Amino acid sequence: MTTIPDPARLTADLIRCPSVTPDEGGSLTLLAGVLSKAGFTCQRVDREGVPNLFARWGKKGAARSFGFNGHTDVVPPGDLASWTHPPFSGHEEDGWIWGRGATDMKSGVAAFAAAAIAFVTQTPPKDGSIILTITGDEEGPGRHGTRALLDWMQANDERMDVCIVGEPSNPDRMGEMIKIGRRGSMTLRIEAQGVQGHAAYPHRARNPIHALVRLLHGLTSTPLDHGTEHFDPSGLQVTTVDCGNPASNVIPERAQATINIRFNDAHDSGSLDRMIRARAEAISAETGISFAISAEVSGESFLTRPGPFVDLVTGVVREETGIDPVLSTSGGTSDARFIKDHCPVLEFGLVGHFMHQVDERVPADQVRQLARIYRRVLESYFS
Amino acid sequence: MTTIPDPARLTADLIRCPSVTPDEGGSLTLLAGVLSKAGFTCQRVDREGVPNLFARWGKKGAARSFGFNGHTDVVPPGDLASWTHPPFSGHEEDGWIWGRGATDMKSGVAAFAAAAIAFVTQTPPKDGSIILTITGDEEGPGRHGTRALLDWMQANDERMDVCIVGEPSNPDRMGEMIKIGRRGSMTLRIEAQGVQGHAAYPHRARNPIHALVRLLHGLTSTPLDHGTEHFDPSGLQVTTVDCGNPASNVIPERAQATINIRFNDAHDSGSLDRMIRARAEAISAETGISFAISAEVSGESFLTRPGPFVDLVTGVVREETGIDPVLSTSGGTSDARFIKDHCPVLEFGLVGHFMHQVDERVPADQVRQLARIYRRVLESYFS
Repeated sequence: MTTIPDPARLTADLIRCPSVTPDEGGSLTLLAGVLSKAGFTCQRVDREGVPNLFARWGKKGAARSFGFNGHTDVVPPGDLASWTHPPFSGHEEDGWIWGRGATDMKSGVAAFAAAAIAFVTQTPPKDGSIILTITGDEEGPGRHGTRALLDWMQANDERMDVCIVGEPSNPDRMGEMIKIGRRGSMTLRIEAQGVQGHAAYPHRARNPIHALVRLLHGLTSTPLDHGTEHFDPSGLQVTTVDCGNPASNVIPERAQATINIRFNDAHDSGSLDRMIRARAEAISAETGISFAISAEVSGESFLTRPGPFVDLVTGVVREETGIDPVLSTSGGTSDARFIKDHCPVLEFGLVGHFMHQVDERVPADQVRQLARIYRRVLESYFS
Repeated sequence: MTTIPDPARLTADLIRCPSVTPDEGGSLTLLAGVLSKAGFTCQRVDREGVPNLFARWGKKGAARSFGFNGHTDVVPPGDLASWTHPPFSGHEEDGWIWGRGATDMKSGVAAFAAAAIAFVTQTPPKDGSIILTITGDEEGPGRHGTRALLDWMQANDERMDVCIVGEPSNPDRMGEMIKIGRRGSMTLRIEAQGVQGHAAYPHRARNPIHALVRLLHGLTSTPLDHGTEHFDPSGLQVTTVDCGNPASNVIPERAQATINIRFNDAHDSGSLDRMIRARAEAISAETGISFAISAEVSGESFLTRPGPFVDLVTGVVREETGIDPVLSTSGGTSDARFIKDHCPVLEFGLVGHFMHQVDERVPADQVRQLARIYRRVLESYFS
């Protein structure tokens, strides 16, 4: 007979695995053991030193397939002396579980693993499958993590029809926010090249700072948009401008700036890149200052439009917490940006307090509540 | 009987005195000797290690007093191996005199000293005096040079009614330019202080770069003026902008810029300082970004208005060179900015080629021509 794990106990067990990216620290081995006992087929999909775990309950090619995604790697604990309890102790006291990964996101993984085991053990679905993808590199470069798992699934005819990423999604209270998409993010580096000269004789020089300031002022003085149906307005931040000229009587030859853009579905990285290059070219034509621009795209924006899947999760969260969750597209990036190319994806997890901080900890009851929500989502999905 | 010195020989003799600021190198001692023999009262006015020479022919309190000003200090020669002839050799060949200070401005000092000696020896004025102020620190900080000489003169009831500064004033050909004033110069350092934060959550931060860019764009996108009767338009150059933030997902706390302004008589340093502070305050009020601004004034603008003195020098230059000189206020600063507080001052000297360069040199005949011009100016002034 299968033992149903307590998600809070499983969280503490996972915290005791020192899995700072990209070390697995025993965390995926532990999960594979627990899941295998409950009838999951487990497969390590390690790539380039990054450990990844794929687990499926039910048959490949089942009529309906529900996915969960998460990671067991954690950011470094920093100064050990600053921690009240050692960061890899999984210490439990007064209803709290302490340690690195307590909120981000060993608790989320423990909750969906425990929920999935309870569900398939107690009320196994007919012609359904549950797929868990768990990576050991979400906090690091992420090139060989969830992306590699998705590539491997595609190559092996594995599929999820929908997926929940178990990242902390609630700012303050359990149940207040489900993330249904994310803004895109890109970084542009701009170098303006002019002609050096004496500040008293500007007609013999071309000041690259003036042209760069003009470009940046144009980009920051008018909003990119005013938001869309499901997204906040896009935002553009100049994060640095540098010239390094110590001589106040000299017009410098070059000046550089970096711009970070968080953009909604009114744009994509290509349209923004073209817009900025067109503005730079117009300024070049007038001033003779040339611009070199390079763009690095962290991710395009995406949206899982409200519909049956979002309604299902919203309903369960409302029933379990008594709160009507906001459907949000706010925040930084997550591995949902890879999954959205494969199936509808949303993010729901714990309250995000203490993420990446010293004395990271989580209430044991909150982990159990999250597992109950996941279990009810599965019941509802397969009913 | 007084020997009239040849200005070209005197230039070569002065070049052989190694007088890199603030070393006198024997140059002022040499001049004091030559001038004393011709009946000048000479007085060293050394201050804080800076050597200065005051010389007067004629009585203190004479009805009319004509002044010349110049300097014998020179900038360092740099790499000695790069010089065709040693920089302190005063080597003469094919009509050229070689060495550091050949144009800037031992030749100018030699020309006005020789012209003054010839004038007072051959055609001494009645109830007139000639005053030479020669400093050993014009190329350096200049705090204890011409300024100290003028202070000393004021304290000792010495005065000039008009003054010519013998700095090179002609861009290419002898006689083409007399400088009758200079634009002012000031440097402002501006620091914008905001609130650091994550680039994805700009509402929790305040980006100092955006406010600084807005201020700088306002200052550089519209001209300060369109020039005045005797001045070119004022110019404002941003010479550096610096932030030094390596993290493209972080809004920095501070950003800095340096501005250099060359301004005409439509402004003064105070009015410009107030204008920029007012613009900064308006942006502060809207954005919550605070600005710290410090200003350093190199000199206010000044102008010796066309009139009898300017006409006199213009007429002599035209007769001696056949060229109608332009009355200009262009170029960097000179010690005329101190003298203008005491009497009308203008600058006329050699062609400025080779100033501060390796292989600095001057045609001997040009030095003699300059001395003829100075002599005729004296004759005309006292006639």
